[in-house]
Amino acid sequence: MATDGPAPGFRRWALEIEYDGTGLCGWQRQENGLSVQELLETAAMRLVSGLPVASATAGRTDAGVHAAAMVVQLDLPEAAELGAHHVRDGLSFHLKPHLVAIRRAALAPPGWHARFSALWRSYRYTILNRPTRPVLDHDHVWHVKRPLDVEAMRAGAALLIGRHDFSSFRAASCQASGPVRTLDLLDVRRDGEYVTIDAKARSFLHHQVRNLAGSLQLVGSGQWTPGHLGTVLAARDRRVAGPTAPPEGLCLTGVGYPEDPFGP
Amino acid sequence: MATDGPAPGFRRWALEIEYDGTGLCGWQRQENGLSVQELLETAAMRLVSGLPVASATAGRTDAGVHAAAMVVQLDLPEAAELGAHHVRDGLSFHLKPHLVAIRRAALAPPGWHARFSALWRSYRYTILNRPTRPVLDHDHVWHVKRPLDVEAMRAGAALLIGRHDFSSFRAASCQASGPVRTLDLLDVRRDGEYVTIDAKARSFLHHQVRNLAGSLQLVGSGQWTPGHLGTVLAARDRRVAGPTAPPEGLCLTGVGYPEDPFGP
Repeated sequence: MATDGPAPGFRRWALEIEYDGTGLCGWQRQENGLSVQELLETAAMRLVSGLPVASATAGRTDAGVHAAAMVVQLDLPEAAELGAHHVRDGLSFHLKPHLVAIRRAALAPPGWHARFSALWRSYRYTILNRPTRPVLDHDHVWHVKRPLDVEAMRAGAALLIGRHDFSSFRAASCQASGPVRTLDLLDVRRDGEYVTIDAKARSFLHHQVRNLAGSLQLVGSGQWTPGHLGTVLAARDRRVAGPTAPPEGLCLTGVGYPEDPFGP
Repeated sequence: MATDGPAPGFRRWALEIEYDGTGLCGWQRQENGLSVQELLETAAMRLVSGLPVASATAGRTDAGVHAAAMVVQLDLPEAAELGAHHVRDGLSFHLKPHLVAIRRAALAPPGWHARFSALWRSYRYTILNRPTRPVLDHDHVWHVKRPLDVEAMRAGAALLIGRHDFSSFRAASCQASGPVRTLDLLDVRRDGEYVTIDAKARSFLHHQVRNLAGSLQLVGSGQWTPGHLGTVLAARDRRVAGPTAPPEGLCLTGVGYPEDPFGP
């Protein structure tokens, strides 16, 4: 991944992309599956007549995880003389028939980097809380049959907000340099059969939102008291926390920058 | 379709079912495709060990149209001694892997009929109104790129509410005995990129909601004035109205009865 500016003769574009992670191996290019990155870079090569194109993202997502508004950078040759609508619609066209499309495209401000300039990321985890399995929301929710007590979940979530060592909610595979993160938001709400968990932070550990959702579900179903989440956090031990909630309930909902790359 | 009570030795069940119409030929059993009715009656036969089972519905839906809460009746043998949870979960199990499942099941009140006892049906038509094609809502929305003026659509919709001859919005294939219907609700709202049209009536003509949506879209995009919808209604001529909106944006959202068959 490029950590600095575009190569000579290239201009950096900011893209806001939406994708359905079902059947994909996640954001990052891999040997053993189709990734969003591979689909996007292939579409970009088609757009600029076969030139190789490098992309970087504000955050990786795992296999099966969705994005409503992921932000990605793409360095495209100046010589292509592309306008913003051309980039948005041209890439979306070349991404067909995959469920990946460009919501917005803009020339990035000088010095902007999709990952390193980002101030925060937000995710929503959605639980379908009813006896009947998901139908209209198939592959986009976690199905929990047992009725969840959202007030208990909210009380438990409140103990996790702020700056903490989140080792108990960190995947073994996490490549971050340390386990300390500042959780700015962890909000649990019910809307009919849906229970949503909204999380926002400067950055997250690998599987952090899914691990938080898995533990919050144990509070909601009455297996844990809300206060037990404080004990789990203090233990700094992944083995004492709840299970990792499945990927299909997770969606990246937004990325924030000091200055909106897509304009006011 | 049975218009009277269950045969001797059978009990009538009311079912609330959710289905994703994508790839199905609609509610009604047909030679040339897989229908919700065929899937449900096959699942019921499996539940009661091979006995044939007859179903009837509050309303038919076309190919590609979805239902969040369709109400269906199913006459099952008394001898099976089934409880409500058994019917709900057993049918849902035998409906796998299809995107059809039972939300609620209850023994129907005496004399109850899914279609003839119904007082109203409600539908929601959903438009995704943005330049980028649908991704997360693929197959569940109508994609309209041109920005829609929802206030104009609301003003036009107001002219269609009430008791009218809806010939201008009636499919040629409609089998109803007459074109007069009473539209109790036709509400247009925007929520971000989504424009929803909620309709409620005792009953609807064939394609009526999709035809209303197709004409409302012409008002929203500025091709028609709101008042032109009154002219179209008065013409009683399908040829002067707008196009039939595509099926994937339509979802049956509810059916009402004098007494809720699923209890208080």
